[in-house]
Amino acid sequence: MFEAAEVGRTLSKTQFKAQVPALREELLQVQRELLKARFPVIILFAGVDAAGKGETVNLLNEWMDPHWIVTRGYSDPSDEERERPRLWRYWRDLPPHGHMGLFLSAWYSSPIRHRVARRQAMAEFDAALDEIAAFERALTDDGAVVLKFWMHLGKQAQKKRLKQFERDPLQRWRVTKQSWKHWRMFDRFVTAADRAIRKTSTEQAPWQIVEGEDHHYRTIVVATAIRDAIRHTLEATPAAAPEAAPASRRRRSRRDADITLEQIEQGFNVLDKLDMSEHLSDQPFKTAIEEQQSRLNLLQRRASAKGVSTIAVFEGWDAAGKGGAIRRITAALDAREYQVIPIAAPTDEERARHYLWRFWRHLPRAGRMTIFDRSWYGRVLVERVEGFATEAEWRRAYAEITSFEEHLVTHGILVVKFWIHITKEEQLKRFRERAHVAHKRWKITEEDWRNRKKWPAYTRAVDEMVARTSTSVAPWTLVEGNDKPFARVKVLTTLAERMEHRLKHI
Amino acid sequence: MFEAAEVGRTLSKTQFKAQVPALREELLQVQRELLKARFPVIILFAGVDAAGKGETVNLLNEWMDPHWIVTRGYSDPSDEERERPRLWRYWRDLPPHGHMGLFLSAWYSSPIRHRVARRQAMAEFDAALDEIAAFERALTDDGAVVLKFWMHLGKQAQKKRLKQFERDPLQRWRVTKQSWKHWRMFDRFVTAADRAIRKTSTEQAPWQIVEGEDHHYRTIVVATAIRDAIRHTLEATPAAAPEAAPASRRRRSRRDADITLEQIEQGFNVLDKLDMSEHLSDQPFKTAIEEQQSRLNLLQRRASAKGVSTIAVFEGWDAAGKGGAIRRITAALDAREYQVIPIAAPTDEERARHYLWRFWRHLPRAGRMTIFDRSWYGRVLVERVEGFATEAEWRRAYAEITSFEEHLVTHGILVVKFWIHITKEEQLKRFRERAHVAHKRWKITEEDWRNRKKWPAYTRAVDEMVARTSTSVAPWTLVEGNDKPFARVKVLTTLAERMEHRLKHI
Repeated sequence: MFEAAEVGRTLSKTQFKAQVPALREELLQVQRELLKARFPVIILFAGVDAAGKGETVNLLNEWMDPHWIVTRGYSDPSDEERERPRLWRYWRDLPPHGHMGLFLSAWYSSPIRHRVARRQAMAEFDAALDEIAAFERALTDDGAVVLKFWMHLGKQAQKKRLKQFERDPLQRWRVTKQSWKHWRMFDRFVTAADRAIRKTSTEQAPWQIVEGEDHHYRTIVVATAIRDAIRHTLEATPAAAPEAAPASRRRRSRRDADITLEQIEQGFNVLDKLDMSEHLSDQPFKTAIEEQQSRLNLLQRRASAKGVSTIAVFEGWDAAGKGGAIRRITAALDAREYQVIPIAAPTDEERARHYLWRFWRHLPRAGRMTIFDRSWYGRVLVERVEGFATEAEWRRAYAEITSFEEHLVTHGILVVKFWIHITKEEQLKRFRERAHVAHKRWKITEEDWRNRKKWPAYTRAVDEMVARTSTSVAPWTLVEGNDKPFARVKVLTTLAERMEHRLKHI
Repeated sequence: MFEAAEVGRTLSKTQFKAQVPALREELLQVQRELLKARFPVIILFAGVDAAGKGETVNLLNEWMDPHWIVTRGYSDPSDEERERPRLWRYWRDLPPHGHMGLFLSAWYSSPIRHRVARRQAMAEFDAALDEIAAFERALTDDGAVVLKFWMHLGKQAQKKRLKQFERDPLQRWRVTKQSWKHWRMFDRFVTAADRAIRKTSTEQAPWQIVEGEDHHYRTIVVATAIRDAIRHTLEATPAAAPEAAPASRRRRSRRDADITLEQIEQGFNVLDKLDMSEHLSDQPFKTAIEEQQSRLNLLQRRASAKGVSTIAVFEGWDAAGKGGAIRRITAALDAREYQVIPIAAPTDEERARHYLWRFWRHLPRAGRMTIFDRSWYGRVLVERVEGFATEAEWRRAYAEITSFEEHLVTHGILVVKFWIHITKEEQLKRFRERAHVAHKRWKITEEDWRNRKKWPAYTRAVDEMVARTSTSVAPWTLVEGNDKPFARVKVLTTLAERMEHRLKHI
C-alpha cells in the first residue's frame, strides 16, 4: 500500500515558490465561499511520526483565516472523556456548517496504537475501525466533506528525518524517546495502518496517501486537494439534486489556470523506482531457474497435501513477458495441480453479471494453483483507461478488489500478484521483433500499438493500483522485466518464498 | 425489532381473492419488462421456521414464469463447496441481468445457525455479517435490486403452526425433530436474527420484516413489494443518471389502480396490540409507586458507585403523560445524579451540525442518569411526518440511531426507551381539560391541535420506528397510558428492572 509513497517525490524550492501565491489566494477564496455553505469540512491528518502532519496543519492555519478553522490534536483522554463513549470528544469538537476542522490523528490514534502495542486483538481492532467508518459515514451522509491524508515516510527516511531533527537545536524537542520507540515498531505500525486504511477507505471518505519526505511536495499536494474538494462540493451543492451530490463529490473540479494534482504527480511513479538495468546472464539463469523449479515442485506437492491453494496473478505491459514467466512456473508442476486462466474480453454470460463473477467461477479447489494471465485488475487498468468502466465504477473497484482478496486470504488461499514492468523502449523493440519474426507475428495486433499510445495514462493507473491494492495480505511484487531471465527468476523465487512462508503458518 | 411482526396481521380469503388476479398479471408484466433490463433481481427469504418462506417461494414460481427465475435453497456445503470461500456457491448461483433469483436463507443461514448453537463467538458472527453486507453492497453497487424478506412468527404462533402441521397428514413431513429443537431455541434465534438484521439492513438492501402467520397477508405483502421494487427500478433506470439510481431506488412507484403496501398495512399496527383498558386504582398505585421509587433510589446509588450510566428516552403523543412519568422518576433521585433534557426545536448552534450532535453533547458522565423528554427519535417521527427531513434522511436515520445506541451500550450505558401511548379519544379529553384549567392552559398550543390531525401518519411512523429500532440491546417499552397511575408504575418498574439486570451483569 505504501510502495507508491516511498518513491522520493519532491518539488524544488523554485517550483514551490512559483505555485504558493496563487494557491494561498484560492484557498482563502474557497474558505470565504464555504462560510455561506450548509456543510462542514473535516480534514484528518494521520501517518508516520515526522512525516509532516503537524507542520502541514500549522501552515494551513497560516495560509487561511484561522478564525473559521477548528484545529484539534488529542492526547490521552481526560477523566471526563474516559467516562463517555470513545467518539464523544470528537463529536463535541465537530465544526459547524461553513467551517473547517483540522484533526490530528484523532479517532484513528488509539485504535492503531493499541493494535501496534498488541493491547488489542484483531477482532477488537476491526470493530473499532467499523465504528470509525460508521462515524465518518454519518458525517458524509449529512453532507460533510471528509478528507483524510495519510502522511507517509519509509523506514529509512523516517530515521533520517529524526536524526536531522536531533542535530538541529531548534527542532530537537520534536524527537523523544517515544519517537525512537515508535521507529523500532515501524513494521508493525505499517501493518496496522495498512489495515486501517483499507477498512476505512470508503467512496465518500477515501484516504489519500501522501509521501511526506519533501516539505514542498506534501504541502502543495495537500493544499491542492483541499482546494479542489471544497470547490467541487460548493459547485455541486446548489445545482444538483441533494441526493446525487455525495456520489459525484469526489471528482475534482478544475479551473484551466490551476495547477492540478495530476500535473504535480506527473513524473512521480512507483514504477520509476525499479532498476531497469537488472539482468542475469545465461549460466546463472539456468542454474537459478532449475533450482527454483524443483523447489516449486516440492512446495506445490506439500501445498496439495495440506490443501493450501494458491492464486497467482500476472499483470504487465503488452509484451512484458507474462506468458513466458507463467510457462516457467507450469513447467515445474503436475498438470492436474494447476489451471491457467487467460483473461480476455468477457463472454456474454459473464458480461450479464457482476465483473467479479467470472473470477469467482475459477477459484481453485483446496490444494490447487490457479494462475490468472491478466485478472480482475483489468477493472482499474484497461477499463479505467479506455473508459469501459465509469469513474465511479473503477474508483469503487479498489475496495471491492481488496475485499475480494481478503475473502480469499481469510479462507486460507495464498494470493501472489506480479506486475511485470518493461520500459517503453523495450516494448518498442519487442513489438518490432514480433512484427518481423513469422512465428511471433500473431502476438502483435493493432490494439497493442493503440495501447502503447496511452502509456502515461496506464502508468498513472498502475501507480494508483499499487497504492490502493498492495495490502499486507496480498502485496504486489513489481518485476523488472527488461531482461527476461532476470524477470523469470524473480517471479519463481518470489512465488516459492511466499508459498514457503504460507506453508510454515498452517 | 419483531414486536411489529407479532400483531396478528391477516387478510380475509375474500380480500385475498379480490387482489390476486391483478397482482399476478402485474408480476408477469414486470417480469417481461425486466428481461430487457441490464440488472438482476435478487430476492432473499429468511426467518423463523414455518413462517412461510418456502410456500411463498413456491407460489412466486407458480405466479410468474419460472423459466426466468433461479430458485435456490442450500443444505450443508458439499466437499467442492467447502474447499472454496464461503460465498463461492452463492456467487456461482447469481442470476444474470434480466432474471430473478429467489434465495432461501442462503448466505444468512450458517452464520445465524452457528451463532445460535454458540459455535461462533460474537466477533466472528459480526465478521460474517460484515462480509455479507459487503457482498450485498457489491451487488447493489453493480445495479442489482436486492430485496430481503424476514418472515417472522411469534414463539406461540410458531408452536401453533408446527402443531397444525403435525395434525395434517399432508403437511406432517414438514415437522422434524429439528423443528422442535429450533423452537426451543427460539429466544436465542431471535437475538441472533435481531443483530443480523440490524447489521445488514443497508440503504440499498434493507430488510423488510413480514408477519408470517397469515398466508394471505404475507403473500400479498411480498408480491406487492416485489412488483413495486422492480417496477420502480425499471422506471428509474433509463431516465435518471446511473449514479443517482441506487439512492432513489427504494422509493416505491405506484400506479393509481394498484393496491399499495400502505393500504394493506393500514389497520395493522404495533400500538393496536396494547390493552388500553389497563388501569390501577388509588391505593395499589400509592403502594406500588412508593415501592418502585425506593427501589429506584437504591439502584441509582449502586449504579453511581459502579459507574454505570443510564439513558432513559421518553416519546409519546402530545399529552400522553411523559412529563408526569419523568417527575415520578426524578422524585426518587438525588438531584446531583440526574439530568432531564427536554428536546424542543434545535438551537442555531445545533442546527449547524449533524442532527445527532446535540444528543452526543448531553451524554452522562459515568454513574449518572440522563432523561430525554423527546429525543433523537424526532428524526423518524415529527421530522418524517412534517417533512422536515427528506425521505432519504429519515430512512437512513434508523441505521444511524441503532448504531448510535449500540455505541452507547457497548460503552456500558443502559438505554431504556418508552413510548407512552394514549388513544385519540383520551388525547381529546386531555386537550379539552388543558384548555379549561387555567394552570394547564400553557401546555396546549395550536400546534398540538395540528399534530392531532396527522394521527394516522404518526401511527405509521411509530410502527416503523418500533419495528426498525427496537433492538435486543435497546428495546422499546410500549406503555398503555390512558390510565396515568398504571403508566407511571409501568415506567418505574421497567426502569428498575432494566437497571437491576444491568447491575447484575457488570
